[in-house]
Amino acid sequence: MLKFNEDAIKKDVEETLALRKDVEVAVKKICEKGYDNIFLVGIGGTYAVAEELMSYLKGHSKIEIYLENAADLTAEGNTKLGEKSVMVITSATGNTPEMTDAVRYGKEKGATIFGFVDEKDSPLAKETEILFSCKGGAYLKLLVIMLAFMKEKGEFELYDLFYQQAESLGDALINVQKEADKKTEEFAEKHGEDSMHYVVGGGMLKGAAYSYAMCYMEEMLWMRTKSISCADFFHGTLEIIEKDTNVTLFKGEDHGRAQAERVERFLPRICDNITVFDTKEYHTPGIDDTFRELLTPMVMAAIYARINVHLENVRKHPMEIRRYYHKLDY
Amino acid sequence: MLKFNEDAIKKDVEETLALRKDVEVAVKKICEKGYDNIFLVGIGGTYAVAEELMSYLKGHSKIEIYLENAADLTAEGNTKLGEKSVMVITSATGNTPEMTDAVRYGKEKGATIFGFVDEKDSPLAKETEILFSCKGGAYLKLLVIMLAFMKEKGEFELYDLFYQQAESLGDALINVQKEADKKTEEFAEKHGEDSMHYVVGGGMLKGAAYSYAMCYMEEMLWMRTKSISCADFFHGTLEIIEKDTNVTLFKGEDHGRAQAERVERFLPRICDNITVFDTKEYHTPGIDDTFRELLTPMVMAAIYARINVHLENVRKHPMEIRRYYHKLDY
Repeated sequence: MLKFNEDAIKKDVEETLALRKDVEVAVKKICEKGYDNIFLVGIGGTYAVAEELMSYLKGHSKIEIYLENAADLTAEGNTKLGEKSVMVITSATGNTPEMTDAVRYGKEKGATIFGFVDEKDSPLAKETEILFSCKGGAYLKLLVIMLAFMKEKGEFELYDLFYQQAESLGDALINVQKEADKKTEEFAEKHGEDSMHYVVGGGMLKGAAYSYAMCYMEEMLWMRTKSISCADFFHGTLEIIEKDTNVTLFKGEDHGRAQAERVERFLPRICDNITVFDTKEYHTPGIDDTFRELLTPMVMAAIYARINVHLENVRKHPMEIRRYYHKLDY
Repeated sequence: MLKFNEDAIKKDVEETLALRKDVEVAVKKICEKGYDNIFLVGIGGTYAVAEELMSYLKGHSKIEIYLENAADLTAEGNTKLGEKSVMVITSATGNTPEMTDAVRYGKEKGATIFGFVDEKDSPLAKETEILFSCKGGAYLKLLVIMLAFMKEKGEFELYDLFYQQAESLGDALINVQKEADKKTEEFAEKHGEDSMHYVVGGGMLKGAAYSYAMCYMEEMLWMRTKSISCADFFHGTLEIIEKDTNVTLFKGEDHGRAQAERVERFLPRICDNITVFDTKEYHTPGIDDTFRELLTPMVMAAIYARINVHLENVRKHPMEIRRYYHKLDY
């Protein structure tokens, strides 16, 4: 398989899971001291991932949680942010200025900054009071933190079972990538030169559709895209769909599934260029169905990791290069 | 001026303002009884308008307010929605099934449904406990409700002055439309046949950019668009901007202005096809500068009402017609 590194996939998951106990200790301390609310703060991809988890949390947790785009938080402010707030962040480089600004704003208000920043010497890491550092995807990192908060509140009874099964997570995601390889390769061959591509997703995959279209297809692959949530799709975008419009639907195993099915019923009546990536078609050995909802964004991310590899190959466009991002001052 | 009806513009504003005292009485009753939180619920355009106001509220009000897409609320649920919640809605037809579903879900949870629905005999109106009916834009309706809640909490000291000046609002918006007519006509002539158009907005105009691109350009004018917030623009979309990309920037007089200026500084270095609509360039006689922030979305809506008229004319595409929306079952 092209550019496929099983060890790296496994290592990413394991490094985050290995920090789980330390996260629990830190969360326990915060809970004992007492807190009013939690701010999930991100920008670009880290915002999208927080949005995925938020879509689950708002129906499942009574904790007062606010989802914030870092730049908007700094610009608009939030009256709920204060001394008894916990700001939860994730970042790879720790160099994104909007994140550092948001964290500084949070600190001014007295909030506790808690999160994962890969680069320990980065500006963001330096501002983070309760700091964890390791490689790996942002979703699992946020999940580890938020499940610990939910556990303390007695909201996630299957906590121990979840982490028993999480030992299989690395292998499960490797398996998803293997199973997705052929379909994603065919997808890349068909759509690699599209002049425009629509990505639709709902529920926990609204963030995934947004992130895939913007952070991967636009930023890294320089393809023109628009992402749209399943809910919003029926309030405007449907009108510009024609027979040959290129549409991808992300379908998960969460509360957004019925919304995705509605899009799936509508589209084939007018459009002939539809691809559906449904997490349900991929197997995660060792993980119970109960946890497939919570892991839906990770399964979809494993699928689109393979789309990336094949689009990069078909387009002859190394994903590392940027035109403007971090190249120009603005 | 093409399709310009001053009386209709004025009447829309006046009908809503005439209900202000009744809204105050209803809000006062709710506050005396006590409530935990307010849910602003909309879908499509009514969601976008709620998002505009929410962008202001979260920095200015200590009331616990949640912004929800109607379809997502029904699918995902929200643990904060209960007997002491107030659900605030607006709708013209009262026939949007996602809104009726969300309101029924809210009622099941015991929430009080409070809002404006133009059509008194519609399904949505029938589900609305505290019902106000009149023509006019959703933003002003939401504003009237939310300012009354803020007043009761002692959060909007300039309340009386605001409503004194609001008597000039109809004329002020007429003036904005007159001042915007020439520029919007030229815009339509230049961009009426664009194969793709980007609309960027931040702060209170993030919702305006979203709504203009999706509800007007896509749904009513069948133009391919993508809207993007000023914050998100720098986390992906910037990479696909080239010399001839068509970009419109919505710039307001709110806390999002600095973000819009950042986009405005960046774009001309690589793009030659930029239009900036800046609310600051348009005069609203009788309205103090103090209130221009809060009215930014209404000023921008007055500007894009003229874009609509001219795009419709250039494209020879009556805005009333739809391909699929309300034409097919889905």
